[in-house]
Amino acid sequence: MQIQDALAELSTLLGQRLTRSKSDLELHGRSETYFPLTPPDAVAYPETTAEVAELVRICARHRVPVVGWGTGTSLEGQAQAVQGGIVVDFARMNKLIEVRQGDMDVTVQPGLTREELNEELRATGLFFPVDPGANASLGGMAMTRASGTTAVRYGTMRDNVMGLEVVLADGRIIRTGSRARKSSAGYDLTGLMVGSEGTLGLVTELTLKLHGQPEAITAAICAFDTVDDAVHAVIDTIQMGLAMARIELLDTETVKAFNAYAGAEMPECPHLMVEFHGSKTGVAEMAETFSDIITDHDGHGFNWATKPEDRHALWTMRHNGAYAIYAARPGWKSLVTDVCVPISRLADAVNETAADLAASGLFGPILGHVGDGNFHSVIMFDAEDKAQFTRVKEASNRMVERALAMGGTVTGEHGIGMGKLNYMTSEHGDGWQVMGAIKQALDPLNIMNPGKMVPPRN
Amino acid sequence: MQIQDALAELSTLLGQRLTRSKSDLELHGRSETYFPLTPPDAVAYPETTAEVAELVRICARHRVPVVGWGTGTSLEGQAQAVQGGIVVDFARMNKLIEVRQGDMDVTVQPGLTREELNEELRATGLFFPVDPGANASLGGMAMTRASGTTAVRYGTMRDNVMGLEVVLADGRIIRTGSRARKSSAGYDLTGLMVGSEGTLGLVTELTLKLHGQPEAITAAICAFDTVDDAVHAVIDTIQMGLAMARIELLDTETVKAFNAYAGAEMPECPHLMVEFHGSKTGVAEMAETFSDIITDHDGHGFNWATKPEDRHALWTMRHNGAYAIYAARPGWKSLVTDVCVPISRLADAVNETAADLAASGLFGPILGHVGDGNFHSVIMFDAEDKAQFTRVKEASNRMVERALAMGGTVTGEHGIGMGKLNYMTSEHGDGWQVMGAIKQALDPLNIMNPGKMVPPRN
Repeated sequence: MQIQDALAELSTLLGQRLTRSKSDLELHGRSETYFPLTPPDAVAYPETTAEVAELVRICARHRVPVVGWGTGTSLEGQAQAVQGGIVVDFARMNKLIEVRQGDMDVTVQPGLTREELNEELRATGLFFPVDPGANASLGGMAMTRASGTTAVRYGTMRDNVMGLEVVLADGRIIRTGSRARKSSAGYDLTGLMVGSEGTLGLVTELTLKLHGQPEAITAAICAFDTVDDAVHAVIDTIQMGLAMARIELLDTETVKAFNAYAGAEMPECPHLMVEFHGSKTGVAEMAETFSDIITDHDGHGFNWATKPEDRHALWTMRHNGAYAIYAARPGWKSLVTDVCVPISRLADAVNETAADLAASGLFGPILGHVGDGNFHSVIMFDAEDKAQFTRVKEASNRMVERALAMGGTVTGEHGIGMGKLNYMTSEHGDGWQVMGAIKQALDPLNIMNPGKMVPPRN
Repeated sequence: MQIQDALAELSTLLGQRLTRSKSDLELHGRSETYFPLTPPDAVAYPETTAEVAELVRICARHRVPVVGWGTGTSLEGQAQAVQGGIVVDFARMNKLIEVRQGDMDVTVQPGLTREELNEELRATGLFFPVDPGANASLGGMAMTRASGTTAVRYGTMRDNVMGLEVVLADGRIIRTGSRARKSSAGYDLTGLMVGSEGTLGLVTELTLKLHGQPEAITAAICAFDTVDDAVHAVIDTIQMGLAMARIELLDTETVKAFNAYAGAEMPECPHLMVEFHGSKTGVAEMAETFSDIITDHDGHGFNWATKPEDRHALWTMRHNGAYAIYAARPGWKSLVTDVCVPISRLADAVNETAADLAASGLFGPILGHVGDGNFHSVIMFDAEDKAQFTRVKEASNRMVERALAMGGTVTGEHGIGMGKLNYMTSEHGDGWQVMGAIKQALDPLNIMNPGKMVPPRN
């Protein structure tokens, strides 16, 4: 790595848009969770695809790592420059390029956030549904294959990215996919890039599917005596084919945190939060069927929110879930787990996790997108207490092993980053070597977000 | 290639399940459309994944091509052994391994056909929706990324394959994906394999999403004065957010062929065939909205088929569409085109295609899955008339160029095979080289279906 030569050339290319200030380096070395600070050598703010391509060519020539950066809200340290190099912050490539209402699609730059996009779409009757909670950049969401509360109805980034412009590790620019709704034209390079966490290239443009704003929306919250009752209500709802737009589980510890943080005044027991989208009669019909299911599972305290402001309050509370839990242990750090299991195993997975955390003496409220079988425990720990952190890691390991034994995955939506790299062999076996072979083929110099995703090179 | 040594070892492995009879070789050298006969050196009928892996290791050792075979219904010559070698027919690996009703998924061997699967699922209340018309094998459908009439509602094979077992080019066996409904755990190897047409490995097991049989289904057929009216009705239907399960266009020439072949007695003008799935009230509501849209576009002769036998007759007629068109020119061959464009360009694409075919003096009825923007012209030609075949190829080329210029793709669902290889650069640019690099990394000896999909090696 010839970092000084690269920095000189990058300075010529970008001028003031290459920064090395201590504050900027530290800002781009931080993670949202527990990973140590890893400041890069410099932060670049390109404005065009051509600049990104030239930047990558310079870095390739000097063997300098290149790490993409959106809003820094990933949870597994995806954007941390663990081998130094250049963090490419897409803050200045945040334009909406074109909305095509007739085709219900949109082309954007990677730095645009999902909330900014939906704000711009407001007058069109269309919206972009993928909602990971954080106001993440769309490029970052694609790279971690993000999903969130609405995936049960609208799918994940895998399902909503139609095409990409990508700068490859040698500076070549390719376009993947097309604006056709389906294609059988060769290997699915769009799908390969989505979820690749910047290890195969930098995304400089995305074409995304949009969806029509539903005619009617209704949301509800409902209490249960046990997590088991709540989860079995979810399973029945799925098997009845009800097209939920969202269905979220909160365990008792999460509810307590919400009450303390947001003044929610909910009874201290497990809850489901649910939302239906459709026509007026369709939504009414779904709500009625859902009420019957809830009753079958001893649900109570059923509360419909049909007014937009009530729904907004409900989902704001949910989106602030992690912050409510953080606030319950001021000054502590968090490890946010993220497993996903087949729905038939969901009750077992949640119950065994809760019992394990209790037996380990850990505070780890559970909440999740249970319509997909995906749930999180936000396990809190005192960074000064090394023994406690060891117990946290061990409990997290057991949660992952439990998910794999049930036919699930070590990460439903947060991705691999630094936190899940050790589980890749357990989940994929020789498939992980195949990922390494693909990485080697597309990034032979190993400059794109090195140290992530694939087996270390000899 | 040391074919004799390979054949001797394969004979020892498979005994009578390796055949070299002229009839079997010719049967596995045929295509459904216009490609010349390419008999392989032998046909293998493995019964286990272990046998497939050993077969591939033998072929790798002797540099012998390996080509997978399902039911031979692909339309672009995907399964033709253009460089000789072994065709692996999965007829004996056609078991349903496990249905998991609670999780709404199923694991099958690749030789099971979609109709066989749905027959086995009949008592479960679940079904597998992807429907390319032909009773194709599920392995073959995955490898060509098939879709068909129901993709507008249920997605393509890309959306319905959750995981695969794959024998790689060196005989290693990997499992991709999991039974979780979503995952962010690394590169999407399942998505990379789906649509790879056997060039990266042989699929020996598939886990597929199932869907609940809808409470209510209603289908309809409706006539229009012009293709333009019909297509604009489709566009309005999509933009209203109506969740059609199927929406098919037939042009006047196709209707004439149906009348002649199936005694359909339809008025000789363009038609739409449509189907809605949902609850009783949901379906009724959709049908009413759709009727309003049809009326706005001067639709007439509206005819609902609510009884199962009437619906069955309707879709059988549609599925026999290609055969009805073949029958209109006895003894001729066909080239089946397959473009897909953004929905806003669909009317232009269909009209310009029809005008071009007419100006070229060609018989090419148009029909398609217009809810996705995907349509076909089945262009008929007399194999003795070389000049006519040249005109057919030229018209097909123009159709493809038109689709690309409109932001579409050269193949919505039939795949690349031999017929579309020449368009890969036009559609993908340098992306095609990336596909070649992936192929090189996973199949360095180039034994998996060589001569297909990727750029020729030097």
